[in-house]
Amino acid sequence: MFSGSAHPELAAEICAALGEPLLPVRLRRFANDCLEVQLQSNCRERDVFLIQPLAPPVQEHLVELLLMLDAARGASAARVTAVIPHYAYARSDKKHMPRISIGGRLVADLLVTAGASRVLTMTLHNSQVHGFFSVPVDHLHALRELAGHFSGQDLIVLDDEIARGTTIIELVDRLREHGVTSVRIACTHGLFAAGSLEWIAAVPEVQEIVCTNTVPVPSAGVTPKLTVISIAPALAEAIRRIHWGESVSALFGQH
Amino acid sequence: MFSGSAHPELAAEICAALGEPLLPVRLRRFANDCLEVQLQSNCRERDVFLIQPLAPPVQEHLVELLLMLDAARGASAARVTAVIPHYAYARSDKKHMPRISIGGRLVADLLVTAGASRVLTMTLHNSQVHGFFSVPVDHLHALRELAGHFSGQDLIVLDDEIARGTTIIELVDRLREHGVTSVRIACTHGLFAAGSLEWIAAVPEVQEIVCTNTVPVPSAGVTPKLTVISIAPALAEAIRRIHWGESVSALFGQH
Amino acid sequence: MFSGSAHPELAAEICAALGEPLLPVRLRRFANDCLEVQLQSNCRERDVFLIQPLAPPVQEHLVELLLMLDAARGASAARVTAVIPHYAYARSDKKHMPRISIGGRLVADLLVTAGASRVLTMTLHNSQVHGFFSVPVDHLHALRELAGHFSGQDLIVLDDEIARGTTIIELVDRLREHGVTSVRIACTHGLFAAGSLEWIAAVPEVQEIVCTNTVPVPSAGVTPKLTVISIAPALAEAIRRIHWGESVSALFGQH
Amino acid sequence: MFSGSAHPELAAEICAALGEPLLPVRLRRFANDCLEVQLQSNCRERDVFLIQPLAPPVQEHLVELLLMLDAARGASAARVTAVIPHYAYARSDKKHMPRISIGGRLVADLLVTAGASRVLTMTLHNSQVHGFFSVPVDHLHALRELAGHFSGQDLIVLDDEIARGTTIIELVDRLREHGVTSVRIACTHGLFAAGSLEWIAAVPEVQEIVCTNTVPVPSAGVTPKLTVISIAPALAEAIRRIHWGESVSALFGQH
Amino acid sequence: MFSGSAHPELAAEICAALGEPLLPVRLRRFANDCLEVQLQSNCRERDVFLIQPLAPPVQEHLVELLLMLDAARGASAARVTAVIPHYAYARSDKKHMPRISIGGRLVADLLVTAGASRVLTMTLHNSQVHGFFSVPVDHLHALRELAGHFSGQDLIVLDDEIARGTTIIELVDRLREHGVTSVRIACTHGLFAAGSLEWIAAVPEVQEIVCTNTVPVPSAGVTPKLTVISIAPALAEAIRRIHWGESVSALFGQH
Amino acid sequence: MFSGSAHPELAAEICAALGEPLLPVRLRRFANDCLEVQLQSNCRERDVFLIQPLAPPVQEHLVELLLMLDAARGASAARVTAVIPHYAYARSDKKHMPRISIGGRLVADLLVTAGASRVLTMTLHNSQVHGFFSVPVDHLHALRELAGHFSGQDLIVLDDEIARGTTIIELVDRLREHGVTSVRIACTHGLFAAGSLEWIAAVPEVQEIVCTNTVPVPSAGVTPKLTVISIAPALAEAIRRIHWGESVSALFGQH
Repeated sequence: MFSGSAHPELAAEICAALGEPLLPVRLRRFANDCLEVQLQSNCRERDVFLIQPLAPPVQEHLVELLLMLDAARGASAARVTAVIPHYAYARSDKKHMPRISIGGRLVADLLVTAGASRVLTMTLHNSQVHGFFSVPVDHLHALRELAGHFSGQDLIVLDDEIARGTTIIELVDRLREHGVTSVRIACTHGLFAAGSLEWIAAVPEVQEIVCTNTVPVPSAGVTPKLTVISIAPALAEAIRRIHWGESVSALFGQH
Repeated sequence: MFSGSAHPELAAEICAALGEPLLPVRLRRFANDCLEVQLQSNCRERDVFLIQPLAPPVQEHLVELLLMLDAARGASAARVTAVIPHYAYARSDKKHMPRISIGGRLVADLLVTAGASRVLTMTLHNSQVHGFFSVPVDHLHALRELAGHFSGQDLIVLDDEIARGTTIIELVDRLREHGVTSVRIACTHGLFAAGSLEWIAAVPEVQEIVCTNTVPVPSAGVTPKLTVISIAPALAEAIRRIHWGESVSALFGQH
Repeated sequence: MFSGSAHPELAAEICAALGEPLLPVRLRRFANDCLEVQLQSNCRERDVFLIQPLAPPVQEHLVELLLMLDAARGASAARVTAVIPHYAYARSDKKHMPRISIGGRLVADLLVTAGASRVLTMTLHNSQVHGFFSVPVDHLHALRELAGHFSGQDLIVLDDEIARGTTIIELVDRLREHGVTSVRIACTHGLFAAGSLEWIAAVPEVQEIVCTNTVPVPSAGVTPKLTVISIAPALAEAIRRIHWGESVSALFGQH
Repeated sequence: MFSGSAHPELAAEICAALGEPLLPVRLRRFANDCLEVQLQSNCRERDVFLIQPLAPPVQEHLVELLLMLDAARGASAARVTAVIPHYAYARSDKKHMPRISIGGRLVADLLVTAGASRVLTMTLHNSQVHGFFSVPVDHLHALRELAGHFSGQDLIVLDDEIARGTTIIELVDRLREHGVTSVRIACTHGLFAAGSLEWIAAVPEVQEIVCTNTVPVPSAGVTPKLTVISIAPALAEAIRRIHWGESVSALFGQH
Repeated sequence: MFSGSAHPELAAEICAALGEPLLPVRLRRFANDCLEVQLQSNCRERDVFLIQPLAPPVQEHLVELLLMLDAARGASAARVTAVIPHYAYARSDKKHMPRISIGGRLVADLLVTAGASRVLTMTLHNSQVHGFFSVPVDHLHALRELAGHFSGQDLIVLDDEIARGTTIIELVDRLREHGVTSVRIACTHGLFAAGSLEWIAAVPEVQEIVCTNTVPVPSAGVTPKLTVISIAPALAEAIRRIHWGESVSALFGQH
Repeated sequence: MFSGSAHPELAAEICAALGEPLLPVRLRRFANDCLEVQLQSNCRERDVFLIQPLAPPVQEHLVELLLMLDAARGASAARVTAVIPHYAYARSDKKHMPRISIGGRLVADLLVTAGASRVLTMTLHNSQVHGFFSVPVDHLHALRELAGHFSGQDLIVLDDEIARGTTIIELVDRLREHGVTSVRIACTHGLFAAGSLEWIAAVPEVQEIVCTNTVPVPSAGVTPKLTVISIAPALAEAIRRIHWGESVSALFGQH
């Protein structure tokens, strides 16, 4: 279990849940801005997991992950699983204009080229994105974690990702016109671009903003309305089952 | 001929030398920091050249180039040549420590995965890096351009790349101890990290610093000692020959 | 231009629009039920187009197409485009249950393995399916053809494909409860399983059923309510542009 | 151990010989004639065997097998062996005419694309077909099973496959002219197209028709001259050895 | 058109028939016995043909051909055709023992890895070997050339290849027992291991030994019974048709 | 553990160090000079090591190794490691002339095509050559073995490989001019072309010539100045660690 620089707190929490040590990684940046990543523990014939959500700065974290994958493969890992709780390029999933790349497919191919033998991810923007990968993918969702938080009496707005918050604010405006006075907001990936969290929290009808920690979220104190639910236990359990060859779909009550 | 955002001035100069238009590219950054690149001119059955040195920020420019390559391939280009005047990851060419990636090989594989059918580059750090590519590579050097600049009477320090300048300064210190009072410095890739150009220029023995424009260089005025030689004519001639199927090695007097 | 056995009428119409001959294909079934396909005209260095929608019996038509692709590649075609007006496996686009194949991705990979250098298709069930292919795809839609047929005053129910018709009938039931008395139905792929066309036509509110000929449709006379619009002109124009390297997206007013 | 729909009886017999359960598979056909296959038991890190001879309808069984392979790979099977007792496309092994596919090679490539890590088959039409596969193949034959059945005093006509029976009948005609009054017929793959079994059995000189159960054979009663020898014990033993890493060639007295 | 060192006379004859120059190749052997091959003429965007039968020493000629293929691809050839009049490894076409390589398939894969975009060969030992290649193959035979040589009244023994001659001598022994007093021997590939030609010629019943020049044959004078028919015109015509995209199968009266 | 024909003594010594039997390999040469290699012991699910330095005749030994790799893969080996103590083509590492192959990269690709899942080698000519391989490489050096032999007081000339010896002799000439009267020579790969060993030994200043046994060296007696140090213990230890998944870099004091 190694962690890239994108979200070491999540990696530490997953390792704690598994009772496994988080192995050290050394990231070096050369004068010409190229990166070098060293996995600082023997990988030979091990079942290696590399934890790196594609949180901003996305391009830095992506290239760092590609270097880690290649290093693990070259170091004779038995299997390398890229654990990408937030697969940001999933939103780039179709040709809405001519002569663009379908980034979600391209990045999937890059990960395989670099050495990923499998991928573990959460709440892809569209479930079709699963089909962009040529290696096995375990695709978790955080519905149980999010649902467990609410009473069933709340009016909840659910989205996969909140970045600027524009869509959410507009939706609450519409709900207000219909007389709604209390809304709770839930999302898996709480990206929250600068200022957006305060902006949403300032809407009086918004009672609570709930997200998970697939990407680093602002520290407590930004707004008392924010609740962060950890998906580390779910990821840890999935990693345990992947390692021991147990069913992951059974986690969701599927057969 | 399209240009990424790394060095549009060089691309414009190459196009001018060829009498070809520089076609527009639209770069868009989403709220979640993912990139989208649109080639804004028909590529179908064209011989497409994409100009992008891996200048800092390297990771941004690399992912942007990968997206451009995939877009060109998906848009049915007849052939896609990645023109990478400065292939920064060439310095990552061996396993000097265990469990690192040989980045020069990894990035070569990523470029091919993304759609590069060939590569045009300049002055690789080691000529062995040519062998990292599985597609044809045209590997130019700027020796004629640099040599043409000097009298033959100068004491010249030649390197492929100057970033921090530490090595150069130390070398001039050694030369000074041997009584050398005048040195001219030449390199292909003038990266010049912040402050380094002024630092080198401040050494009294340094008469002139000569580099080419494979990467963007500080604008005139930073130091009167800096001379920038354009490699646009050499790249333009190589591109012309690649397109028309003429010998590129003949450019260097080889047969 | 060769046609598989799935829809020779459409192929003939496309060829007529292009003023090109439809070249003969010989399909042979051995005693052990294996198929053999012979392209009966020289393919060497030609720009070959193979027309075969995945209409029922889908498995027969798919294997026949794979054999045609391999034959064209082995016969030294310069390029082989699979023209698949109806890509039936596009509906198999996600893992809605564990341990199933994402058929849309698998069939895309099979087509490439068999020799497809590119694909021309219409109205995929989800636009994400485009990203399942590792070769360039031209993805047309029939919106202009369908839209041109209606007044603007009609209540139109639009779907990509009608097979059993259950969804449509249920929708009309709902509309009737809201007092709607006149509905026109439009879809791209008119599969119409046995009896379904009569069943839909028997609904009094249904004024007209409009589909295109991406798959063979029942001959005139089954019901006077059926209108079939030909997409042969659109496909012919796309094939012409693909062959001559002109923009296909410009067909849709895109740049 | 999962079985496709082509020959569940053989799969059940193999499982019984191994003392392993035959795991359930759900085959679903959509309204548009596409197939969906679900392996209904956890495959993660298992050594999965999929049993499916290419018996008629060959195309249906082939696509079903490809979907099963992809499902097993996507479900993280440790290894997937396609057990294809009758590889019908082996007869398509050369270009006897221009512009046909060598179907035996194409289908081999499709199986690998879909996820087969190895293949177990019986009595290929030509042993050269082994070389069409890019993954390890275990190629059994039924000679011991067939030979054990005869006295050594019989005049036996041996073929790999009987479909229409035309060749056999002609051969018996020739033998009759030379005074032969008693012939026994043996083959591995008893395909027996409609009516052919009765036709052969009606020849007075034919004393017995012996085949194995690589493909489903007519139930007892069609003709008392038919004897079916099970190859399930041989396949079971080969599967056991493949799973446990023991020599399969030793089964045939090879070293 | 370049020639390896295996059979420059044949290459020269083919070039003469085409009116094309035979371009120079420089073969260098280093002190450590490694080979280096330089194609000494510009290949860029050319349709390159490399002529090299796998005549003894086979391993030397094979590696030399692989180096030529890689050099041509790296030098940006538009297409590289390996012209291998004698594909010696075709005899290694099945697993007649466990744990051997099917050499005919392995060498086919090596040629493709090294850069062959297509293959032109003559009289493969088994026509199934065609299916070992993943690139288009043009498979000629010399039947017309050989047949044109005989009266129709001769007793001819035809084989694809004669190396030691043991089989031929044994066959003539059998024929002698049946009273045959005159035999003519024909083969495509006249390998003739040391002494074998004299040995066969010494058999009184052998009137003539006819072979083609797919491999270098002993110079005139070894035995007056030897006739060598050139296949250079047939190869030249095939190369001409491949280059210009005309049907090669039409050469044999096929459609 | 199997050995090719290049250096069976080294293989025997490695096996002795490991306490493992050296398994038999049968090499057969056909009349047409093609090779056939049979691994004469079960490989199924085994961790197979094939020992073959690329010593002269290099092309014979290379093709033999490729055949062994393919045989092991086809025989269902769990993993196949090519143990190549001397990778002769490492010297072909750049395009020093146009239109040559970078042989070190080509041969790396051929080994992977033939079935190598990993490579174990010693003292590559340039460490960049490591990056030519797309599979994991363990790259040992013999510095400890060589260093342990000398007092620290000697003037040692160290090279990776001595073939003709010309460079060494010239260097000693230069040293003599500077008054050096005693030199010891050390190299990893002692190729020693015919006569070169005697030639070097005849130089009076040369006190000792030390090499390892990565390639077969002349038997004792050629010159008393020759000392051969065995690298079998180092290779044996590396093989043991590779098999059991222990760190190989730790062998060199790296972490």
